[in-house]
Amino acid sequence: MKQRIISFIVSNQPGVLSRVAGLISRRGFNIDSLTVGVTQDTSLSRITIVMNADDQIAQQVIKQLEKLIDVKHVKEIESGMQTLSEVALIKLNSEKNKVELMEKIGQLWGRVVDMGEKTTTIEITGRTEYINESIKELEHYGIEEIARTGMVALERGDIVLNNFEL
Amino acid sequence: MKQRIISFIVSNQPGVLSRVAGLISRRGFNIDSLTVGVTQDTSLSRITIVMNADDQIAQQVIKQLEKLIDVKHVKEIESGMQTLSEVALIKLNSEKNKVELMEKIGQLWGRVVDMGEKTTTIEITGRTEYINESIKELEHYGIEEIARTGMVALERGDIVLNNFEL
Repeated sequence: MKQRIISFIVSNQPGVLSRVAGLISRRGFNIDSLTVGVTQDTSLSRITIVMNADDQIAQQVIKQLEKLIDVKHVKEIESGMQTLSEVALIKLNSEKNKVELMEKIGQLWGRVVDMGEKTTTIEITGRTEYINESIKELEHYGIEEIARTGMVALERGDIVLNNFEL
Repeated sequence: MKQRIISFIVSNQPGVLSRVAGLISRRGFNIDSLTVGVTQDTSLSRITIVMNADDQIAQQVIKQLEKLIDVKHVKEIESGMQTLSEVALIKLNSEKNKVELMEKIGQLWGRVVDMGEKTTTIEITGRTEYINESIKELEHYGIEEIARTGMVALERGDIVLNNFEL
């Protein structure tokens, strides 16, 4: 099993996400993350699914997705051939060690987006592994809450998945 | 109708996302974005849904979500009371006006993550409106492809949605 990133375009119709999620759950797959975001064309969205699966299973998922109504351009974005990104909001306990915490946030290229009396919320952007590592380094200060978007990916170089032929 | 951000915690079981998506689609709602990302506790994920709905509909959705198995802590994150974030990968045509494009990317706090012969891929992080405006300013150069995560949100200040009582 390895990590798979499956990217595809759907038309913005109620029910599309439900069909996609139904297909994955019927097969008993558990996904690491799923994002649905708009594209250049507001009538279309891109769904990115990150999951662990072997080659055969991944091919099955892709074939099944391709058969769904309102789904097009299903593609596995190959490891090493992509640019990846995710953003995490992390609410940290900042009652103690505030100076040290601020230094650590700076080292991790975090951006402070809110400060409460007892907590500081930061935003960290990057590859999933980078966010995982940053969270580990911040655990020591006390993490109150995390909201992560899940990963999106585009292929490296000039390759373009054509969005506009659904 | 106004934009609603509904945030909740689910246990990582196959079928949860399917039930959530099914509930939304049966009611004919079209959502702007949906993200599923892991939390501090790897057995739990947070789902963030962004949709347009009036007060009554939003309350209905929340009540229905609360009834689903493996779903807890459903909450609307009130406008003005949140920190919001999203990340977009944007593949731009960079064959012409490269210097001007690089200046523009810098102005928008974009980060170059890949360069092809004809294209440059950048990462932009921020509130959804900020990403929308950045995309508008970049359209002039030619946008080849966009992958957006959709929005995540945490409440401002010290308020914490308890993740750990599912």
